[in-house]
Amino acid sequence: MSCQMEHAMEKMIFMFHKFAGDKCYLTNEDLRVLMKKQFSGFLENQKDPLTMDKIMKDLDQSRDGKVGFQSFLLLTARLTIACIDYFIVHMNQKRKKQK
Amino acid sequence: MSCQMEHAMEKMIFMFHKFAGDKCYLTNEDLRVLMKKQFSGFLENQKDPLTMDKIMKDLDQSRDGKVGFQSFLLLTARLTIACIDYFIVHMNQKRKKQK
Repeated sequence: MSCQMEHAMEKMIFMFHKFAGDKCYLTNEDLRVLMKKQFSGFLENQKDPLTMDKIMKDLDQSRDGKVGFQSFLLLTARLTIACIDYFIVHMNQKRKKQK
Repeated sequence: MSCQMEHAMEKMIFMFHKFAGDKCYLTNEDLRVLMKKQFSGFLENQKDPLTMDKIMKDLDQSRDGKVGFQSFLLLTARLTIACIDYFIVHMNQKRKKQK
């Protein structure tokens, strides 16, 4: 399996399980650590210091303090859409360096 | 930016733009080519030969023959959930080889 998209999918699954451990969900603390480690670039670019809290509150719809895999994918999709401009600028910079 | 999750997000954006070209959407043909090239492992594992057609029909809700970035992320999330077992088996095999 050498497809980049399948690699991306595999990374999302791997990361969820890495931070969820043997549980099948992330606690708020798991999610906070995951976001700091895996979305640092995104968080650094946020003007609103409460961005993380808002995202976490929004994700934990059932208010049981547990974030499942589907909610985690939803988070990833939202962050991807929210920072698509940031990534396109970053990809173009990388391309210029490679020339 | 060295975070694996941000890499995964960047790959999804890169792949969408690679197959959409200067358009901001994928035609059905773009999507068919993308799926064959990027989700070949997933498609090979499907018993139903009509899986691709069903996915494409489901994605193109507006029936205008255009699949935007958000629909593409939705597709990726659904495929990730649909084949999470496939990926976990694959990741465990990779880990055993590395031991």
